[in-house]
Parts: sequence; C-alpha cells; structure tokens
Amino acid sequence: MPADDISLKLLHLLRQAKDYISGEELSEKLAVSRTAIWKRIGSLKKEGFNIEASTRKGYRLIQSEDPYGKVSIQGRITGKILGSSLKFYQEVDSTSNVLKKLAAENAPEGTIVISDAQAAGRGRRGRAWISPAGLGIWMSVLLRPDLHPSQVQTLTLAASAAVMRALVPLGIEGLGIKWPNDIIINGKKVCGILTELSAEAEKVDWVIIGIGLNVNHDHDDFQTEIRDIATSLRLSGRRDSFYNRSEIAANIINELDAVYRGFLDKGPEWVVGEWKKWNVTLGKRVRLISQAGTREAEALDIAPDGRLIVRYDDGTTGEVLSGEVTLRE
Amino acid sequence: MPADDISLKLLHLLRQAKDYISGEELSEKLAVSRTAIWKRIGSLKKEGFNIEASTRKGYRLIQSEDPYGKVSIQGRITGKILGSSLKFYQEVDSTSNVLKKLAAENAPEGTIVISDAQAAGRGRRGRAWISPAGLGIWMSVLLRPDLHPSQVQTLTLAASAAVMRALVPLGIEGLGIKWPNDIIINGKKVCGILTELSAEAEKVDWVIIGIGLNVNHDHDDFQTEIRDIATSLRLSGRRDSFYNRSEIAANIINELDAVYRGFLDKGPEWVVGEWKKWNVTLGKRVRLISQAGTREAEALDIAPDGRLIVRYDDGTTGEVLSGEVTLRE
Repeated sequence: MPADDISLKLLHLLRQAKDYISGEELSEKLAVSRTAIWKRIGSLKKEGFNIEASTRKGYRLIQSEDPYGKVSIQGRITGKILGSSLKFYQEVDSTSNVLKKLAAENAPEGTIVISDAQAAGRGRRGRAWISPAGLGIWMSVLLRPDLHPSQVQTLTLAASAAVMRALVPLGIEGLGIKWPNDIIINGKKVCGILTELSAEAEKVDWVIIGIGLNVNHDHDDFQTEIRDIATSLRLSGRRDSFYNRSEIAANIINELDAVYRGFLDKGPEWVVGEWKKWNVTLGKRVRLISQAGTREAEALDIAPDGRLIVRYDDGTTGEVLSGEVTLRE
Repeated sequence: MPADDISLKLLHLLRQAKDYISGEELSEKLAVSRTAIWKRIGSLKKEGFNIEASTRKGYRLIQSEDPYGKVSIQGRITGKILGSSLKFYQEVDSTSNVLKKLAAENAPEGTIVISDAQAAGRGRRGRAWISPAGLGIWMSVLLRPDLHPSQVQTLTLAASAAVMRALVPLGIEGLGIKWPNDIIINGKKVCGILTELSAEAEKVDWVIIGIGLNVNHDHDDFQTEIRDIATSLRLSGRRDSFYNRSEIAANIINELDAVYRGFLDKGPEWVVGEWKKWNVTLGKRVRLISQAGTREAEALDIAPDGRLIVRYDDGTTGEVLSGEVTLRE
C-alpha cells in the first residue's frame, strides 16, 4: 500500500517521543485521520513492533529489538535506485523465483523481494540453499541495466563487493571474497550470491541478484553435511547476542545501490577495483574444477568482465570464465 | 501423441502406393489395429492431406501440394538434435513466448514451436514482427548448450548461416546476411532472427532462437510502412508459384541442426567461417546507430564471439557489441 511512507513517519514519531504520544498529535503531525493512525499502528504491531495503546494517553513504542520486516528495513534505505519497491514475505519458495515473476510483469528496476524463510532456496548451478526462518537474510534484487549479456558477470562482482562493504563495519576477522562471489570467513562460506539474467543475444532484459547471508545461525542450525564448510556472522563474530537482520539487509541494499551506480558511472574497472580490496583469491594457488577436469594454477588477476586470469604449472596462462574454484592451503 | 511415428509411416505407405491401399494391409504393415489406422487417417485429413476413403478399396492419397503442418514438416526432419519434439499451432501470440513457457517446464533441447500465424510476433528490441497466416515461417527452437552467456551471440550467427544454407539452393539472387543476423535480398529484409536466453551469470540455462521468414507474401501482404524495406522469397524469387513452406521449414531445421553440431564440435571460429560465406557486411561502409549516437565506419571483420570489428574515419578501430547497422551505398 502507498501508506508505507506514513507508517515510516509514524514509527519515527513514536521513536522520538520515547513516551506516550496522543493519537490527536500524531494525526495532526502526519496530516491523516485518527482512523488512519489507528490502522497503521495495527500494521506495525502485526510486523512485531511492541506498541502500547492507552485510551487516555495515546500510543507508546516499547523500544526493543526491531522486528525483521518491511518497515524496519525500508526505514533504513537511503539508496537512489534500490528499494523503490520492497516486498517482504514470511515464506516463499525462493525470493528469486518470486522476483522473476514480478520481472515478467514489468516490475521496475530496484524492486526487492525479501523473505524470512525460503522453502526452496537455490544456490549456483541448481544447488539447494537452506534458508530457515529467523536466521538469515534471503533477498533478491531486480536490475535492468542496458548491458550486453557478457557484461553481467561484472554485476556479480559488484554484488559481492557491496555485501563486503556492508559487513566490514561489523569487525569480524577473516572476511573475504572468493572468486567469483562467495563471501567467506576464514575459509567457511557465510554468503552466496546467485545472479540470473534474461536477455536477447545482445541486450539484457533483467538481472536478478539473489543474496543468501547466514546471520544468526548456531552450529546446530546448519545441516550436518555443511557444518564444516558453512558459518554465520554470529558463529564467527559476536556470539553473545543476535545481529539485527533489518539493519544488515538495509546496509547491503544501500551499498549495492552505491556500487551499482559506481558501475554505471565509472565502468567495470572500478568495480573490479572494489572487488580486489576484499578478495582472498588472487595470488593464491587454486584448484579449478570444470567439465574438462581438475587443474591447479596460480590466480593472477581478474579481468573487467569477471574472468579469472591464472597461470598453470606449465607456465602457460589462461582465463577462466566459470567453474568451481577451491583455494589451496 | 506418441503416435506421430505411425502417422509418418502411414503417410509414407500412402505415398508409395500411389493408388488405393486397404486398411487391412496398412494395419498389417504398421502392426496396429484398423481402428488406429482409421484414427490417424482422420488426423492427416484434418491437417490438410487429401485422402479418399472407400469401404471396399481402402485409402488413397491424392498427391497434391503438402499442407503446412506438423506431419509435413516432421517427415522431412533428418537432424539429430533439433525437432525431437515439434509443436505446430494455427495461431499463437508468439512462438518464442510459447517455447519460453515450455522451457520453464523443462522441455528438452531441440523442442521446436511453429505456428501458421502469430498474433504478437516479436522482432529484436521489442519491435513487432507481422506474422499473418498462410505466408511465412514463424518458428522457435530451444537449445540448452553448456555455454557462458557471452558465447550466445555466436549462436545467433550460427542461426543466420543455417537459414542461408537452407535458402541458397532456391537460387534466389542477392541473398546475404547483414550483421549480426538479418537475411536480406538485394538490401530488403526477408528474415529476422531473435535470440533470447535465460542464464546464471556464468552458465546458460536455455537459448531460444526465433526465426521469422517471409515466404509467399505479395507486395500487398506487407504493411505500407515496410513495403520498401521488406521482401519475401516469392517476391524476390519465382513469382509464378508458391514455395513449399513445410519443405523450407524442415530444411532450416536440418541445417540449424548441422551448424549447431558444428559449433559444438569445431568451435565458434568455424561458425564465423560459415557466416562469412554469406555476409554482405564486411568490407562495406556502415552506419552504426547506438545510444552514444550515430557514427560511420568501415566493417573490417567479425570476432568469434560475434562482435563486429570496424575502422572509424579517424583511423581508430573498435569492436561493436550490439546496436543497429545500416549498410551504406
């Protein structure tokens, strides 16, 4: 509903007041009816905000941890392109699937789908991405850049750089990007990015960037098979309290907005520069797994279109478009 | 229905017989019941084959021009990959739209959709492609190559080379390919190709090649606005009779099968070699129309990934990924 703006302003007034504020005052300041206030208080409570209502005194926000939801996230979005339309769900099959349908119905650039849980979250190459409720950020972002399909992989690099820019201020040690776009903490995966596109042979129609970030998982929250290779911000960072998912989600959106605009304004070389700041791949020995087989090499550099440039053990160099990369020692 | 095979064999027997052949004999030779024969005779008649039935003598095919339909086309398909599943419609919105839905439901590589008419045929960059009944070949082909999205434009070149290989035996003068994939006859467009793809950033899920070929149009069959820039095989070739659309459609499918397998086996350089045989762009002066504006240049060469290499008037060279190209003089 287009009332979001009023909900956000209402929340802001409740926060400022710190004590009871009358329905009449709210109604005046927001220039809407008292019924309209009452309805939006209901929506905020439904989203998890703890608001007390008194017939005499009005409304009061019990300041506690933000609930994870549309208002909490949208209230923190400052970007110019991303988040123009934000859809929040309790559970969907996959946020990228929901967004694909919206894209087919001509949803505008910047539309975002976030869900507390995904029943069928997807990773790269058809793999599953376990996405339980209450623990992570499962989010998809719709872009409509005027690009050739070969330029899209740069957007994948841009997305991983944006996630890094949002996570670095948390002060967790060992964070880095593994080519092309896994975010790892001391070798364990904390975030995966799946970029999908629809295009004519020479012109992109849309790009959907799906981001899965493990935030508040405990060791037991991971399936046995992936416990040794997966981690969460909480497992690797501050273990004594939960991270605020709304805040982190909004920061990722804001950073992605900035990096995306940087890409459009300054070009792919700038994105590669951002990406390199956090990479843990270049200069390392890597094992490359592709259809052609497994090969070891040294990761030398990355091209503006996203290719990994490597030197094989026989001294020849090559460019890797895709495939799996394992870091050695 | 999986009975297609039997329909095709039945048609073959009717053709061979040249006179009446009894239901009993057909039933024996095809190892199916007489009711099954009777049903398939009905389907063939429905598709337009002129078959006489006599209670005493059996069935007889009146040999006349093939009707344009599934059996006529499928009976001529010899390719290994393309045409494994062929769907024929009288009218759809767009054959590529129908095939996109089938692709999303995991239709296999080689699935083909052909329609006698399209209500909303599409050209490149969202343009309309007028597709009346009875006059042209409106066809879409599903491929699932294990490619990076940047390699898909080579498939567009492959498709135009395949169409040329199917058309050249018709002996029409002035046929050629304008970069990247318009088929023209003496400067007028006779065939357009629209390649669309769905992919992860580094791996193609599917490619749909849509082919629109004007076959039996008269001058009046084109809308006034495009009469000066469009042509049909009949307008530029033999004007006294109609071309057999089933035969041409099947030939395009067979040639596309061959060129696609050539691409997979021999690589993009081989495709570019095929494309160059028919190109009318290289060596010419071209006008390049892009977002950045209009510029004139000389078309020098084409890269294996489909880019057009040009030399601008100031002596610098450049690579053109996409955009509109007009041939000069």
